[in-house]
Amino acid sequence: MMMMVAANCSLQADLPTTTELTDDQHCTSWRYNVDVNNLRSWWVVPNQCENIVENYMRGSSYRYDSAQAMQEAETYARTFMYSADYNSSTRYTWIFAIDDTCLSNLPYYSSHRFGAEPLNSTLYKTWIGQGKAPALQATLQLFNTLKEWDYTILLLSGRLESQREATIQNLIAVGYADWEALILRKNTEIHVDATSFKSKKRKYLEDNGYTIIGNVGDQWSDLTGQAVGDRVFKLPNPMYYVA
Amino acid sequence: MMMMVAANCSLQADLPTTTELTDDQHCTSWRYNVDVNNLRSWWVVPNQCENIVENYMRGSSYRYDSAQAMQEAETYARTFMYSADYNSSTRYTWIFAIDDTCLSNLPYYSSHRFGAEPLNSTLYKTWIGQGKAPALQATLQLFNTLKEWDYTILLLSGRLESQREATIQNLIAVGYADWEALILRKNTEIHVDATSFKSKKRKYLEDNGYTIIGNVGDQWSDLTGQAVGDRVFKLPNPMYYVA
Repeated sequence: MMMMVAANCSLQADLPTTTELTDDQHCTSWRYNVDVNNLRSWWVVPNQCENIVENYMRGSSYRYDSAQAMQEAETYARTFMYSADYNSSTRYTWIFAIDDTCLSNLPYYSSHRFGAEPLNSTLYKTWIGQGKAPALQATLQLFNTLKEWDYTILLLSGRLESQREATIQNLIAVGYADWEALILRKNTEIHVDATSFKSKKRKYLEDNGYTIIGNVGDQWSDLTGQAVGDRVFKLPNPMYYVA
Repeated sequence: MMMMVAANCSLQADLPTTTELTDDQHCTSWRYNVDVNNLRSWWVVPNQCENIVENYMRGSSYRYDSAQAMQEAETYARTFMYSADYNSSTRYTWIFAIDDTCLSNLPYYSSHRFGAEPLNSTLYKTWIGQGKAPALQATLQLFNTLKEWDYTILLLSGRLESQREATIQNLIAVGYADWEALILRKNTEIHVDATSFKSKKRKYLEDNGYTIIGNVGDQWSDLTGQAVGDRVFKLPNPMYYVA
């Protein structure tokens, strides 16, 4: 058993040290680790990564990645409808987050270094209150398709109850309509982390007759915890992290 | 409430259709969706993406991404040791997958179109049996650091019991040593999917005094299901998918 085997190690030789990396290499790896949730609880985009985040968000890749993610969700929704598990009397439900899922805060972050400066909560609240966020077109398209297919759609967001009117106006202005409910954070829930808040709401929904088939969000805190649904679909968002 | 708000939609205009994408754009988005587990149960790398996968795996990005992932894991392990939760009498455990986590199958896949051809299970078994896989250096470095810090290390793999000897020889030859146990698949477990198999083993471990702090793998089936541990760390692997 202890016979040694000559192993070819050349393909994995010489780990780079951080100082040897160019900003581009460092930030590409930063993005990979953010995307897959290896890197958590980061507060700002690293200074040297502002350009890579800006280029990604302004360029075509962000839209392509999102479009393909939502196409996967649509494929899953269609497949499920034709599966043996499908029972037309069940209230099959899809859950959507709002910020950078249904609505894009890119106009705001474009003026705030794409997340490379700490969030100014006063300015951000003003932006939300204006109700001027554009739709993410890939999400809107999925949303409309799911409605046609008679899925129940629930919006679940960490936005505050005080932002309800502005949120509804914004959603309607950019084309969203006919969701079943919009669940927001009450004043008593302000200090609950997003994963716990959203888990609790989803659990309540499941206990009350909603069967969650799909769950769409830009943060892992939308998609982890309890009652996440049969499948989760992660949109890219390298601009900020919500715990 | 029904006052309409003029929304600026220009940033999200005109979704691309698949046919408009270059291979590079399509495959970059394919990789994003594979990485975050939006795209599941794929059997081969799409033909047009073979080059992008080859370039990624042969180039520096694969090693940088892996190194940063394992650095995050090390940071978490260190932080935990100094946290108020730490209790020196507890058997704190890290779990590692083997294929493309501890050991690299890149030499095999280099001869098999980087996953763009269906797996030839006979040839693949021969490769495993030869015990010639190199170490992923970033993983080996984390493994050794965790041992120094007195974490218990368990190897949990979908490899078969019949591959135990070759696996142990290979691990030792490339520098792995002193793991607590190597858990492999029995003949009776061959048809269990990886998520269920690994969940069951982790649950058993937790029920028997092992507290899983970290869990390292290249497949989401290593890192989802039951008893996944406090934190999971996902290494990149765009070459194949294990359900």
